[in-house]
Amino acid sequence: MSETTLDKIVSLCKRRGFIFQSSEIYGGLAGSWDYGPLGVELKNNIRDFWWKEMTQLHDNIVGLDAAILMHPRVWEASGHVENFTDPLVDCTSCKSRFRADQIDLEEACPVCGKRGTFTDPRNFNLMFSTHIGAVKDESSLIYLRPETAQGIYLDFKQVVQSSRVKIPFGIAQVGKAFRNEITTRFFIFRSTEFEQMEMQFFVKPGTDDEWFKYWKGERMNFYKKMGISPDKLRWHKHGPDELAFYAKEAYDIQYLFPMGWQELEGVHNRTDYDLNQHQKFSGKDLNYLDQETQERYIPYVVETSAGLTRNVLMALSDAYEEETLEDGEVRTVMRFHPLIAPITVAVLPLVKKDGIGEAAAKLEKSLREHFATFHDQSGAIGRRYRRMDEIGTPYCVTYDYQSLDDNTVTLRYRDSMRQERVKIDELVNKINYESKNYKRIGGEV
Amino acid sequence: MSETTLDKIVSLCKRRGFIFQSSEIYGGLAGSWDYGPLGVELKNNIRDFWWKEMTQLHDNIVGLDAAILMHPRVWEASGHVENFTDPLVDCTSCKSRFRADQIDLEEACPVCGKRGTFTDPRNFNLMFSTHIGAVKDESSLIYLRPETAQGIYLDFKQVVQSSRVKIPFGIAQVGKAFRNEITTRFFIFRSTEFEQMEMQFFVKPGTDDEWFKYWKGERMNFYKKMGISPDKLRWHKHGPDELAFYAKEAYDIQYLFPMGWQELEGVHNRTDYDLNQHQKFSGKDLNYLDQETQERYIPYVVETSAGLTRNVLMALSDAYEEETLEDGEVRTVMRFHPLIAPITVAVLPLVKKDGIGEAAAKLEKSLREHFATFHDQSGAIGRRYRRMDEIGTPYCVTYDYQSLDDNTVTLRYRDSMRQERVKIDELVNKINYESKNYKRIGGEV
Repeated sequence: MSETTLDKIVSLCKRRGFIFQSSEIYGGLAGSWDYGPLGVELKNNIRDFWWKEMTQLHDNIVGLDAAILMHPRVWEASGHVENFTDPLVDCTSCKSRFRADQIDLEEACPVCGKRGTFTDPRNFNLMFSTHIGAVKDESSLIYLRPETAQGIYLDFKQVVQSSRVKIPFGIAQVGKAFRNEITTRFFIFRSTEFEQMEMQFFVKPGTDDEWFKYWKGERMNFYKKMGISPDKLRWHKHGPDELAFYAKEAYDIQYLFPMGWQELEGVHNRTDYDLNQHQKFSGKDLNYLDQETQERYIPYVVETSAGLTRNVLMALSDAYEEETLEDGEVRTVMRFHPLIAPITVAVLPLVKKDGIGEAAAKLEKSLREHFATFHDQSGAIGRRYRRMDEIGTPYCVTYDYQSLDDNTVTLRYRDSMRQERVKIDELVNKINYESKNYKRIGGEV
Repeated sequence: MSETTLDKIVSLCKRRGFIFQSSEIYGGLAGSWDYGPLGVELKNNIRDFWWKEMTQLHDNIVGLDAAILMHPRVWEASGHVENFTDPLVDCTSCKSRFRADQIDLEEACPVCGKRGTFTDPRNFNLMFSTHIGAVKDESSLIYLRPETAQGIYLDFKQVVQSSRVKIPFGIAQVGKAFRNEITTRFFIFRSTEFEQMEMQFFVKPGTDDEWFKYWKGERMNFYKKMGISPDKLRWHKHGPDELAFYAKEAYDIQYLFPMGWQELEGVHNRTDYDLNQHQKFSGKDLNYLDQETQERYIPYVVETSAGLTRNVLMALSDAYEEETLEDGEVRTVMRFHPLIAPITVAVLPLVKKDGIGEAAAKLEKSLREHFATFHDQSGAIGRRYRRMDEIGTPYCVTYDYQSLDDNTVTLRYRDSMRQERVKIDELVNKINYESKNYKRIGGEV
């Protein structure tokens, strides 16, 4: 099997409408990406799967959607104003700018080749800032949030007061965050604008180790349920040099991307640090009162913080395969789990004539209430199958002459390319059953 | 029936966790709101209903999710840099600032009461601006998008090339936009950060009037499907003084909010203006080539642009009722359509003891795969019903002693408060059937 490179994925994404460069007709904007017709469905499906697993199906987790624009004191309390910086150097000769930790300062400038031209490193804050209201001064300075977690801490007390939750409980949120990264890279992996799927689980101090272990297990299971190759997932424990000073314990789930092992999600024991900071900076009491025991305390927080946009890149990388068939033909197939595939069912008339085109169109319409469908009647049937393979459609339904007689269709499976006859009346149940019991075929290295 | 005021809605939203002021512990941020546990579910349900209706169930509409940060030339082409302004005046005495069109400039300052103290009006641009990259100067100036439509125009050509769509077709998008409004007001109605649900439908010039009519019909139907009171919806035609200079025809759907008739959605014939502007400013050919007739043209655009956050306020306003019951008790009931209700089914054990609490908890878990559920076992059953009425849960299931014997439960309807016995085995089908055939009872003025 040939190697899956990032270039191949970027190319397929553009060609088939998964992901485009933002503002491309104007030359693009660095680190900014648009999700096209297939990309937005893939992203939404991962988002919805996460949301349902974390809120609807789980005990004691409620949702939240906090604003991107928050009071600026939030970022003083969180430490971002002071510490969320990269060290930058300029080349005094060619004016190029670099991250000091990504180049060798003893060497020559990578752009103009001169030596000894670098300035001393200066700290550069990664938060985008803007001004609210009509006056632009220090008093109106606000930030685009660089992470979504703080919104959850701010609303902790309001959620407790309004929502009848009791510790232990969690607050889940999906939303955008922004970082003015000087070195965006690896396609959508590190971009200026990205989406996070975060859950902060509030627990009684002393029970945090147990809950940390529980959430480690749950989060790794999530990716297995999504059909991601288990051998491309691993834990990375933060060593003493990586661990945030307030964190008690931190593990990342890493995925083996085409560019190597990289962080996908963090499971962190953030202790009572954040709530304590906001209590201190706001002057508001953020203690939790246990109604039964009458104990008052600042809860500990176990955080599960996943990148939704990184999840999209993982899903694309994991699904991609160039498979050599028996006859030597190579097909590109995206082996998405049916749960997250942008299109679940394609309905293909064998030919357009003799009423077959119309009958297939009618069938496709009848399936729309149940599945994301696609109707494609142009080109040879084999070519149409290949197009569906390339965008990862797990099920193709072909309507042919026999269908007119006996109300059966051919159901064709993407992974195995196996075909079988199925009664039209049983199609919805059959596809639901196959989706639920999906086991990936192929794609193992 | 007592009047539904905005204050009552704001109060219920805070009390029951629909919507909170953002950053409240820091004194809030003007015009910024957080969606709490029930609010985020309500908003997501409206979003998902719109998305499914517009993409999955409709012919020829694909989705998109364009970045919030775009190339700055986009806003020159669209006219926002030049024209997206409010006229502001300052009081030279007390330094207060006002929108010149919202006060009488001949009168005294509304704050300090002095006369003749206003400066001349100056134009103030409503776009939030920030800088990308490490240097803050004119060359790095970018904007938070003040509307979502432009992202669709920018990607029009990429979608045509990658997605096998043919005119007429539409591109649908849900996303956030930002406006530095000096006078935010009416709760979430006019806020600095808001969400839009937009669809741009690309048609052949000359067929635009027909499609405009079609989309007017479709969009009004959407609100009726969502269960909104038809007598609180109306069309407002843009007169010559309101019509944008490039628009051929424009209608707004207005809803009778507690503060009066206000715009909810616009259906606009934007002609070929936007694509022409982007062709001119980018130098890229944005013509569409009809493969069959070999005609080349810039398509016309019929836009349907709805506020998602305004839809949330409409859903809350439309659902709210204080109903006086036969015994004189007044109950607050939110008559949400089951399609958008934050919680669909509450499972309530009549008592906790005798295994009834456990059995109800088990039943609630078994329903989670199908519905958004809630389990509440504290307080008298009548009080629990009232709590569910107040957050708009259409169905309550009560597990009691009889349930232990015959595997039936009481199904209680929110609107009519009618109760009936249903077999547990039939509960999922029964609730699905009732949701689909929901007709609102009560709530008419």
